[in-house]
Amino acid sequence: MEPKAPRESRTTLTDLVLPSETNPLNNLFGGELLARMDRAASIAARRHSRRIVVTASVNHVAFNKAVPLGSVVTVEASVSRAFKSSMEIFLDVWVEDRESGRRTKANEAIYTFVAVDETGMPVQIPPLEPETDLEKERFAAALRRKQLSLVLAGKMKPNEATELKALFDN
Amino acid sequence: MEPKAPRESRTTLTDLVLPSETNPLNNLFGGELLARMDRAASIAARRHSRRIVVTASVNHVAFNKAVPLGSVVTVEASVSRAFKSSMEIFLDVWVEDRESGRRTKANEAIYTFVAVDETGMPVQIPPLEPETDLEKERFAAALRRKQLSLVLAGKMKPNEATELKALFDN
Amino acid sequence: MEPKAPRESRTTLTDLVLPSETNPLNNLFGGELLARMDRAASIAARRHSRRIVVTASVNHVAFNKAVPLGSVVTVEASVSRAFKSSMEIFLDVWVEDRESGRRTKANEAIYTFVAVDETGMPVQIPPLEPETDLEKERFAAALRRKQLSLVLAGKMKPNEATELKALFDN
Amino acid sequence: MEPKAPRESRTTLTDLVLPSETNPLNNLFGGELLARMDRAASIAARRHSRRIVVTASVNHVAFNKAVPLGSVVTVEASVSRAFKSSMEIFLDVWVEDRESGRRTKANEAIYTFVAVDETGMPVQIPPLEPETDLEKERFAAALRRKQLSLVLAGKMKPNEATELKALFDN
Amino acid sequence: MEPKAPRESRTTLTDLVLPSETNPLNNLFGGELLARMDRAASIAARRHSRRIVVTASVNHVAFNKAVPLGSVVTVEASVSRAFKSSMEIFLDVWVEDRESGRRTKANEAIYTFVAVDETGMPVQIPPLEPETDLEKERFAAALRRKQLSLVLAGKMKPNEATELKALFDN
Amino acid sequence: MEPKAPRESRTTLTDLVLPSETNPLNNLFGGELLARMDRAASIAARRHSRRIVVTASVNHVAFNKAVPLGSVVTVEASVSRAFKSSMEIFLDVWVEDRESGRRTKANEAIYTFVAVDETGMPVQIPPLEPETDLEKERFAAALRRKQLSLVLAGKMKPNEATELKALFDN
Repeated sequence: MEPKAPRESRTTLTDLVLPSETNPLNNLFGGELLARMDRAASIAARRHSRRIVVTASVNHVAFNKAVPLGSVVTVEASVSRAFKSSMEIFLDVWVEDRESGRRTKANEAIYTFVAVDETGMPVQIPPLEPETDLEKERFAAALRRKQLSLVLAGKMKPNEATELKALFDN
Repeated sequence: MEPKAPRESRTTLTDLVLPSETNPLNNLFGGELLARMDRAASIAARRHSRRIVVTASVNHVAFNKAVPLGSVVTVEASVSRAFKSSMEIFLDVWVEDRESGRRTKANEAIYTFVAVDETGMPVQIPPLEPETDLEKERFAAALRRKQLSLVLAGKMKPNEATELKALFDN
Repeated sequence: MEPKAPRESRTTLTDLVLPSETNPLNNLFGGELLARMDRAASIAARRHSRRIVVTASVNHVAFNKAVPLGSVVTVEASVSRAFKSSMEIFLDVWVEDRESGRRTKANEAIYTFVAVDETGMPVQIPPLEPETDLEKERFAAALRRKQLSLVLAGKMKPNEATELKALFDN
Repeated sequence: MEPKAPRESRTTLTDLVLPSETNPLNNLFGGELLARMDRAASIAARRHSRRIVVTASVNHVAFNKAVPLGSVVTVEASVSRAFKSSMEIFLDVWVEDRESGRRTKANEAIYTFVAVDETGMPVQIPPLEPETDLEKERFAAALRRKQLSLVLAGKMKPNEATELKALFDN
Repeated sequence: MEPKAPRESRTTLTDLVLPSETNPLNNLFGGELLARMDRAASIAARRHSRRIVVTASVNHVAFNKAVPLGSVVTVEASVSRAFKSSMEIFLDVWVEDRESGRRTKANEAIYTFVAVDETGMPVQIPPLEPETDLEKERFAAALRRKQLSLVLAGKMKPNEATELKALFDN
Repeated sequence: MEPKAPRESRTTLTDLVLPSETNPLNNLFGGELLARMDRAASIAARRHSRRIVVTASVNHVAFNKAVPLGSVVTVEASVSRAFKSSMEIFLDVWVEDRESGRRTKANEAIYTFVAVDETGMPVQIPPLEPETDLEKERFAAALRRKQLSLVLAGKMKPNEATELKALFDN
């Protein structure tokens, strides 16, 4: 299969924070943002694989910055690494100030999706070829994250996780 | 502050999978389950702290098992470890078969919440005292997870993460 | 069919009151609570019968206590009496104060469900065997309620409603 | 206060049954219909009283007829009797067949609302003066229903419920 | 086919403005009102044609008057002219003041629907016969609007649009 | 005020068509698409004006192509012309085929928004300076559309609508 670049799966979902999506501090609910990111990530995964895709895991999401009612929120998702039938999707979330127009980074998140056929069985997908420096960095880190998740799930021995082990060996 | 047990924050959210919550394979959307878990986790965090609580991070969620339309899903959340003002919440998700009545585990997830005052500033919360074996095991693992997330965020040096390092040192 | 106890169908739905569910006084809409109770009751009915179940009637619901925005609401539903193919479900609704953690009773409600097959035809269900004093009391009252609803619908003559008549005969 | 007629509060809510509102048999969820009826009843109560109104109780709702996906459903609500600050609202629910255009009765329901001021305290409302035969019949039955609900709540002795007692005295 | 009158398709959708449907000024979102009008218009189109109907276009909607949170909004839709398989639907939107009970006009809108069979192919529909003066006026204007939309879409030459041309010829 | 280019307000909202948003033919509801376009257009209007913005009118929307369940829909909105305090927003809607990845145009729509202050009074906004050929063409057509809407509303005499009159004068 022909490799694809991250820009080919890039997905932008810009939308408002509506009153029904806020918590008692009048900020966007964590759960609502998780749901929006899941939809954007699934579209990116589908653009890379052209297959039905299902959420396999949410690797890590940090909510560093509250997103107030009435904000404009932009979720940008692209495939950061493709494995055999699974893809890591990297998401950046931006919030935009109405008066100054300035965009600030609110969150990052990493989701994993699997491409499947109509019966739900995993299918092979094209490799990913990163182009920019940021894309190359995320591509490399994706392997460490995959090893870490295999180790934590008991499916890989820590000392076989070569990429990860290097982190602790100095 | 008096320590509290995990059972004091235990929260059960049993609900149906409705048609508006399903993906093209007729299974519950990942994003919808993330939102339900966020609500259950926030109630557990609030029961432990009796404060306003906000989602700080989703540490890891694996979607191992599809949850079909019409299923009964039970989300059970309890605080697994309390730090100064943050809490780790451990969630178990069960799916129930209508005909046999058998419950099977569908997912596990770990969320972190922070207790805040009306201005959004972190406030101190009671410690957690685990009681059962499973609670003690999750309590211990929570420290490793906290170190891991500090290391990955570049806020702790790998060789200071003593709990975590032990994993790779053999 | 083997009789079942109310605890075998007990269903707990704990969830937040979200901004989209409140009326102009900032309290939970009656209609939204009715919908939540219907979902919890349908799960209890399904757990007792292991069949598809449909709402047959809402017998009586009193809204005694307003449920403010941001509250934690717990709906508890169990089968209170099983007839040939219909079940009475008794629901208790509790509201929890964030600061004190105290739970107070907000509502009671009684729903009736019918178990049906795939074509919508009623099917036979197991009998209910109450265990606690409260369960026995609700079991007895369920028969009076059934007679009352048959009398009001003109399907039973008042003087045949022996359980009910006793109420007025003194 | 000037009495009002039922037609002055009559409220018509005609809407579609959408896919997100249906159960596993592809019929409108009981809970969803309860929520629609609550909204229509609250508008009728508001039109009669010109006050803020809150749901006090759902007296009885029978779901006699399934309402399939894609149906056009009409909920008609009018005040059937006004007491000091509470109103009984009678609702008729009609379903319309797309091909023949024939409307059939799907449900009847009775809700009670209370008129309140901005602090939530009950306020006095105008009396109701029924005009048609059906309105007069519902007006008379409303008193029996009120006595019944007072008796069942233990707030009236059965032998003081004169309207109701007559039913059983023959 | 027998002609039908506008009253035979008249559809009334009276409902509340809920908190989840409002913008930062606490008024009903334009988009939400567009969605409600689409549902009411589709029911009117269906009542005229007794067929499956799909939205073909929204011709013009002016939002002249803000609709505040908690308002009662009435959308009234009727077929204003029927062509071969398409229908123009005229909508009037009213807002009701709680205290005085006075209804004021908030909006007018014009939608076009097409009647189709199960495969999505257009089918013939009955003609419309207007009865009142207002209905006759809207019926006449509908032809000018149709010509205008054909001219703007480049499907009719301006000088063939006889009804429309008259407007500019003096 | 400094003029702005259309690219400065360009807004992309890519999202899935979910089961709760489809009609009986399993295609996206017209009303749901109108609501999405309203949200995207309001963000574009806000990016141009950096003010609170409210929907003034929907000028014309043609639904040329059905959008099936599960599709990926991209709504692209930019300001096409700015007047004193109102802006015309031009929207293009694209649907993406999962297997081939091909995007096809599904709809065009034109909305008008007004920039207001906190009390709802119109405020002045920057002019628009189109850059590309398509932007220049839409900029010119916007004036004709404004005249047309003034003529149809009886606020401009047809023979003063110079841009529009030219269309019919040959």
